[in-house]
Amino acid sequence: MELNCELVARICESFIKDELSKAGFSRVVVGLSGGIDSAVACYLAVRALGPSNVWAILMPYKTSSPESLADALEIVHRLGVQGETVEITSMVDGYFASQPPANLLRRGNAMARARMIVLFDKSMEHSALVLGTSNKTELILGYGTLYGDMASAINPIGDLYKTDIFQLAAYLEVPPAILQKKPTADLWAGQSDEAELGFTYGEVDELLHKLIDNRVSQETLIERGFQEDFVHKVVRKIQGSQFKRRGPVICKMSPRTVTHDFHYLRDWGL
Amino acid sequence: MELNCELVARICESFIKDELSKAGFSRVVVGLSGGIDSAVACYLAVRALGPSNVWAILMPYKTSSPESLADALEIVHRLGVQGETVEITSMVDGYFASQPPANLLRRGNAMARARMIVLFDKSMEHSALVLGTSNKTELILGYGTLYGDMASAINPIGDLYKTDIFQLAAYLEVPPAILQKKPTADLWAGQSDEAELGFTYGEVDELLHKLIDNRVSQETLIERGFQEDFVHKVVRKIQGSQFKRRGPVICKMSPRTVTHDFHYLRDWGL
Repeated sequence: MELNCELVARICESFIKDELSKAGFSRVVVGLSGGIDSAVACYLAVRALGPSNVWAILMPYKTSSPESLADALEIVHRLGVQGETVEITSMVDGYFASQPPANLLRRGNAMARARMIVLFDKSMEHSALVLGTSNKTELILGYGTLYGDMASAINPIGDLYKTDIFQLAAYLEVPPAILQKKPTADLWAGQSDEAELGFTYGEVDELLHKLIDNRVSQETLIERGFQEDFVHKVVRKIQGSQFKRRGPVICKMSPRTVTHDFHYLRDWGL
Repeated sequence: MELNCELVARICESFIKDELSKAGFSRVVVGLSGGIDSAVACYLAVRALGPSNVWAILMPYKTSSPESLADALEIVHRLGVQGETVEITSMVDGYFASQPPANLLRRGNAMARARMIVLFDKSMEHSALVLGTSNKTELILGYGTLYGDMASAINPIGDLYKTDIFQLAAYLEVPPAILQKKPTADLWAGQSDEAELGFTYGEVDELLHKLIDNRVSQETLIERGFQEDFVHKVVRKIQGSQFKRRGPVICKMSPRTVTHDFHYLRDWGL
């Protein structure tokens, strides 16, 4: 699907400005990984707020690829934003040093959450809000770490599929090295999103668009030619990750319960 | 207000059992601070699952009070649950060592979030879910760290006010030392919840019960004798912490958006 990039970029810019001003802030911090999602979020923030109001935080772990860091630094230089590098190695290794050997998934989750700690701490240091960089494909599939990279205050790109992000990145003139690299969470050497997921972003975004946005049933999609195994695998991922898209489940015991039915403050003039 | 402790305890036990089994788990991990909330959550988990299915994780920082740790250990011994102590000092100091001096609030937030990392990692190690220990007073006032102590998978006590927790703790026969101590987040020496908040839990719970659960207006409550300043202070706290009770704000661009209107999977038979 072709994106009206000019319109989408303008919507994102207004969103960033409006949400900041509603909350009484004028700055954002954004974690720059060297990947395309955080690059796009950073470019949008600069368009909305100007480079002096954007803090780009680079948070390598000792095994992070040096190319990722170089690509992130390139963005800092091109855009002229405030840049800061904070190694997360001491936090992560400080914990796992006292633990029996942990697998890559556990280590990856701890890295993503250590970065969350840094970003939210930096947001307080700089009187800023944390800009989210999760895209819609990741959020719907649950392909991210709860309370880690999925955590933010405001997320301008969370309703854009990965394939939309590619189009928007090209429109925003994100550096070619970032546009062309294989998507990876970079949590361990050689990690590739598409290899790990078992399908391409192009394939899954087409399916998700029909399934989620157009509410086409699984049966109909299979009739129309989507592979049955693929549809079921994706649906299982969506169902199995529902917990990552909502708050803790609270045992309801009163008329108004947080995360159940205490959502709105409308009656208080908010 | 008097709590029907027997009934409430039974509701909490069913909740823990049901939510675990729906998610395909049979164990919980719970962070034991030595305070009353996590003690109550742990007692409820043992009633629901038996001590061998409960992992109590003690996570002191170097400045945490030794009495808190001793009180938490006492619970581990009394209940016979699996116990484990993980110091968070190396994680927290590993980060702040590379930073300019940070105030107590930033340090406290980082501690709460480091504990979240440990609990979610331990939940993966032990194939368990993280049991939440935030009470309703804290959740409504936003008196907690987003993505820190407010983070969990399932929370049996999140709809009970602090004054309810005291009654339930007495019913569950939580050790007297824990029942009688002054509530504190123990993030720095001498911290006291009620001194920091500027009112007692008894006062604010009475107000919150009327304001939130009974939907009595601020004006009416002030007419009925609540101090105007107190009511406004509490309402400001509730309004100012609404962001802690919901997910990131996502820029809406499609018919179905995560955290806006992609909440339910009902149409998929879930």
